[in-house]
Amino acid sequence: MSDMDQLAMQSGWLAPDDLDLARERVPMGYVDAVPVRLDEAGRVVAVGLLLRAMPDDTISRAVVTGRVLYGETVRSALLRHLAKDLGPMAQPQLPPNPSPFTVVEYFPDPSVTGFVDPRQHAVSLAYIVPVQGECFPAPETLEFTWLTPAEAASPEVSREMTGGHDRLVRMALANVGCLP
Amino acid sequence: MSDMDQLAMQSGWLAPDDLDLARERVPMGYVDAVPVRLDEAGRVVAVGLLLRAMPDDTISRAVVTGRVLYGETVRSALLRHLAKDLGPMAQPQLPPNPSPFTVVEYFPDPSVTGFVDPRQHAVSLAYIVPVQGECFPAPETLEFTWLTPAEAASPEVSREMTGGHDRLVRMALANVGCLP
Amino acid sequence: MSDMDQLAMQSGWLAPDDLDLARERVPMGYVDAVPVRLDEAGRVVAVGLLLRAMPDDTISRAVVTGRVLYGETVRSALLRHLAKDLGPMAQPQLPPNPSPFTVVEYFPDPSVTGFVDPRQHAVSLAYIVPVQGECFPAPETLEFTWLTPAEAASPEVSREMTGGHDRLVRMALANVGCLP
Amino acid sequence: MSDMDQLAMQSGWLAPDDLDLARERVPMGYVDAVPVRLDEAGRVVAVGLLLRAMPDDTISRAVVTGRVLYGETVRSALLRHLAKDLGPMAQPQLPPNPSPFTVVEYFPDPSVTGFVDPRQHAVSLAYIVPVQGECFPAPETLEFTWLTPAEAASPEVSREMTGGHDRLVRMALANVGCLP
Repeated sequence: MSDMDQLAMQSGWLAPDDLDLARERVPMGYVDAVPVRLDEAGRVVAVGLLLRAMPDDTISRAVVTGRVLYGETVRSALLRHLAKDLGPMAQPQLPPNPSPFTVVEYFPDPSVTGFVDPRQHAVSLAYIVPVQGECFPAPETLEFTWLTPAEAASPEVSREMTGGHDRLVRMALANVGCLP
Repeated sequence: MSDMDQLAMQSGWLAPDDLDLARERVPMGYVDAVPVRLDEAGRVVAVGLLLRAMPDDTISRAVVTGRVLYGETVRSALLRHLAKDLGPMAQPQLPPNPSPFTVVEYFPDPSVTGFVDPRQHAVSLAYIVPVQGECFPAPETLEFTWLTPAEAASPEVSREMTGGHDRLVRMALANVGCLP
Repeated sequence: MSDMDQLAMQSGWLAPDDLDLARERVPMGYVDAVPVRLDEAGRVVAVGLLLRAMPDDTISRAVVTGRVLYGETVRSALLRHLAKDLGPMAQPQLPPNPSPFTVVEYFPDPSVTGFVDPRQHAVSLAYIVPVQGECFPAPETLEFTWLTPAEAASPEVSREMTGGHDRLVRMALANVGCLP
Repeated sequence: MSDMDQLAMQSGWLAPDDLDLARERVPMGYVDAVPVRLDEAGRVVAVGLLLRAMPDDTISRAVVTGRVLYGETVRSALLRHLAKDLGPMAQPQLPPNPSPFTVVEYFPDPSVTGFVDPRQHAVSLAYIVPVQGECFPAPETLEFTWLTPAEAASPEVSREMTGGHDRLVRMALANVGCLP
């Protein structure tokens, strides 16, 4: 094993080959985060969506999503992916309850659950995360947009999402009582 | 009806006689709020308990609790009782999901659910509410104290609570993964 | 107080006048139940909807709904309304967690929450209730129909619901991962 | 790759070497199931605990637990482990909501979350699963016992659990309103 690989493993990151190996053998642990803006009474007034290159080679709108690393807690994974995608000034407020609002099971085969990741079988814990600060998306993200709940659930915006993220957004809106 | 009663009803408050009348006829709608402090990863690091005169004539520790008025939303009721009990500088952050973490059914008879209110049958929606600002309790509250999860769940502190609030605090701690 | 009223109160039922009085003073405690059929893996395969006269004088599709009586637990209220609406052979299986999947706040004014009851302000705990047996709806119910999740969420069926029950059904489907 | 390995991988099972490899690289996806008996109103009247050899080399009481295989849904994993541990006559009723009541993060290091698995980092989705039929535990399980909620939460029984399963049982009891 090279020094680089050694370092990668110690830090929880895998060399590409090792990750491919694991991906063929066990489901990957993921987190999905739906960023939301709340009013002072805690009601969702906006949903944040990224625009970026997706694993299915489309440019699509999507929620924040990413892998849980070996040795990393779910909360740390959420904070890491939120910071990466929304920038260092975003102030995400993780909910105290560790239970996700839903569990999303991504499979390469769209017929299993309707949630699709062509690269892998992933089991994703999905959270609704209130964000207070300014969001400056990462360079590889083309755009980050706050939409009203009605916009986020609209057929127009839904068509701009792939892999089932449109359903995930509607499920999040339903959870917070804002599904139109 | 007196002007006072008229005003009381319009503002959602009842003249004492009317409230007594309703209390004998229908369950009262209540909210309970367990104030918590979170660390930056969203983990509960402290639980806030009031010390005050209770409906059972004891001086006890308790969570924030109160009635939902006619015409008032559950969120407004929560904010009103939190402001009254924790003062205007507390910054309670109501969760976006309207679903309570548990439902507490208070009865005069302790044998029904173990949750007791000698005055009435109340159905209370119980929420865990992160609070960020300084708390200055209301004059009728003798004390407001932040306790660690372990302290809040301890037999000593549990003995200082009545009506089932000790169980409610343990249920809240379990919900956020902090029950010892 | 008449003997009739006396009896009504003891049994938890109110004489119409007393109920009207309470309705003008405090929010009414309600339960909503969305009946579902599960497959052996616990996935929702059908949603049950009633067809009946509604408080807004329409004939509409609706979920099971009704008041929590004075002295009655939420579980007893659920079982009573499910038995009344689905008949004695329905075997509803109340979930062990007392927390509703959402809270529905009905107001006479449609602009408050979008959930409407022209008669009253009601705070309703909404549950998803798996049902195993045969359903024989009550005489005042014109029809009881099992629909697939896709049918239950369709614009056609949604248009046959009033008061916000169409949104409630979609929120229930989202909760169980079956919102199209 | 041997034919055996080939078969193992196709069927979702890993050859021991491959599993060890994955275990060192990514968190393992797990499910925990707390078996419960319900009364007709859906209240938990008993909690089922296994007695068996644990990964920490103790003989301990434990809830049902096991890995999610590559290509397997969370529901299938739950049913497979419940059938293996409780026998073919147990009739587990998976809840329609895919969200676990809590997420348990097991680490070899007890200081991270207090939930411990000396073999691996595992992220476990924990469910409360009503069981209706007779339970005949697997040969490697020494005993399967139904306990009252009070017994299951008692210090005596808690001492017979390792890895944090005693806390998990108390969290489950809190979730269903039965924590003493």
